[in-house]
Amino acid sequence: MGEKDLAKRLMAGERRALARAITLAESGRADHRIAANELLEVARTSQRQALRIGLSGTPGVGKSSFIERFGLMLTGMGLKVAVLAVDPSSTLSGGSILGDKTRMERLSRDMNAFIRPSPSQTELGGVARRTRDAVALCEAADYDVVLIETVGVGQSETMVAEMSDIFLLLLAPAGGDELQGIKRGIIEIADLILINKADGDLKAAATRSCADYAGALRLLRKRAQDPDGYPRAMMVSAIQGDGLEETWAAISELAEWRKANNHWENRRKIQAQHWFEQEVRQGLLARLEAKPMRDAMYSMGAKVGSGELSPQSAADRVLKELKNH
Amino acid sequence: MGEKDLAKRLMAGERRALARAITLAESGRADHRIAANELLEVARTSQRQALRIGLSGTPGVGKSSFIERFGLMLTGMGLKVAVLAVDPSSTLSGGSILGDKTRMERLSRDMNAFIRPSPSQTELGGVARRTRDAVALCEAADYDVVLIETVGVGQSETMVAEMSDIFLLLLAPAGGDELQGIKRGIIEIADLILINKADGDLKAAATRSCADYAGALRLLRKRAQDPDGYPRAMMVSAIQGDGLEETWAAISELAEWRKANNHWENRRKIQAQHWFEQEVRQGLLARLEAKPMRDAMYSMGAKVGSGELSPQSAADRVLKELKNH
Repeated sequence: MGEKDLAKRLMAGERRALARAITLAESGRADHRIAANELLEVARTSQRQALRIGLSGTPGVGKSSFIERFGLMLTGMGLKVAVLAVDPSSTLSGGSILGDKTRMERLSRDMNAFIRPSPSQTELGGVARRTRDAVALCEAADYDVVLIETVGVGQSETMVAEMSDIFLLLLAPAGGDELQGIKRGIIEIADLILINKADGDLKAAATRSCADYAGALRLLRKRAQDPDGYPRAMMVSAIQGDGLEETWAAISELAEWRKANNHWENRRKIQAQHWFEQEVRQGLLARLEAKPMRDAMYSMGAKVGSGELSPQSAADRVLKELKNH
Repeated sequence: MGEKDLAKRLMAGERRALARAITLAESGRADHRIAANELLEVARTSQRQALRIGLSGTPGVGKSSFIERFGLMLTGMGLKVAVLAVDPSSTLSGGSILGDKTRMERLSRDMNAFIRPSPSQTELGGVARRTRDAVALCEAADYDVVLIETVGVGQSETMVAEMSDIFLLLLAPAGGDELQGIKRGIIEIADLILINKADGDLKAAATRSCADYAGALRLLRKRAQDPDGYPRAMMVSAIQGDGLEETWAAISELAEWRKANNHWENRRKIQAQHWFEQEVRQGLLARLEAKPMRDAMYSMGAKVGSGELSPQSAADRVLKELKNH
């Protein structure tokens, strides 16, 4: 299909056009990248914005069930919902998760939902770039909500938080009063902590956990971008559908407050600047992978291996050479 | 003191000269760096090599006690021992550990031991570079064993493993039969897993843990650089001094085997090449922090913030400009 046609169909919100556009953006082929960049420019000038919701949680916490129920609730309200999965590194985790439509069977059949698995790249920077592009394309396709899902592993949470307006952390009820082995940093970037599985046998544990997290959140410094009462810990049951309306109400309240108080645009501005800096760094490092630098790296590396040059002085030579390219 | 004199005193193994040389290598001052580079060149051409032993373990596992007892045993054998601490990021961990001489009181008073705290830099790459320099300087000062200690946090373990000949992982006895929340990857890079605190009340738990880890190690693919029986899990008691001789015997056996089978030099060669590549990457990224690029980054960042340019196209412009500097 022609690219002009594709842009039109993307803007009209066609799911297949959106899928194709994301495929182009994920591709390594030069002609695909050119087509993708044109679509991204269309997306940018469209000025369309979705509510970008980041969602993280360790494997087994019930992310898929939550997204399925939460997503169906939103489409039931007439909203268009896109779900993008981010697998930080399939080599690391053994491809433990994500993005397959079978996980969210009903949602994937919903005409107002779009589900996309993680781009398969081993390098986190590459995944970040592709996901940002996918978010922009979903916005161009007039989606109201873009859910960006990741597992709570390594740096992927920070990455997802950096492209979200609102960041949710999904947790399971803890056994006792100890906070689960989650990183301190993740608590600090969460806007809402959702204790899932607040049902059946786990209800009491969930209630305790929720109180624990609420207590932990109160210990944190108040953030300028939050109204009173946020960040907040809440209980949900993805299986029973409990607490999902309250979650949406909290998200909406937070979003409205931030918009009214200028924090919304400010956050997006900071995110765009951060993205720009990352693009520069990555572009710079990419030069090492391309000819003629790749050859220089190889031959200097051999000299380091043979002991002819120290790592430092070999690096200095390569860096000097780089100035001429 | 004159630098020529310093090189001579360093080569003579004077502790104060070694301390001064490392301080120069850690310094940000240009004249210090020049002096340090000369010393590093002296170190390189000296061809002196120490046994580089990496040691990792979570806080509280008894690293300090282990190093004190193990180090004293080695100096008692007539060996010169240097201990370098690597704190992955004092901002992250709140400076939870490391390197203070009070932790290893007896060892620090030993004339044949040298203890150096972590270089205080927030950036892991910077810490890596300084530590590698310190290792090289210890070798020039004719130390027989260089122990590089780190906490089991984030990427610092991998970094330390990449500059070690032998990598030890120190663990506490687990409560039950579960493997402690250690990363899969760390098991894969360990040459010896030492279960510490195999004494008193914890002896039984240590025995179970040791069997668990031995079982886990048997599940791993056999590595080309290992003789039969390695990697290996062993029990030690740093407090009672149990198992330290056996640890040294295992390290020696492993080292001899690798030397005889060419894996030793090969590993160092690969490490040097890796170091070279990291130096190139860091040197490249450092250009963004220096004028005139810093100004370009700032002004382009502002245009991204105002929405005048997309992050991608602003990055493209900066990258083009970089070619001219």
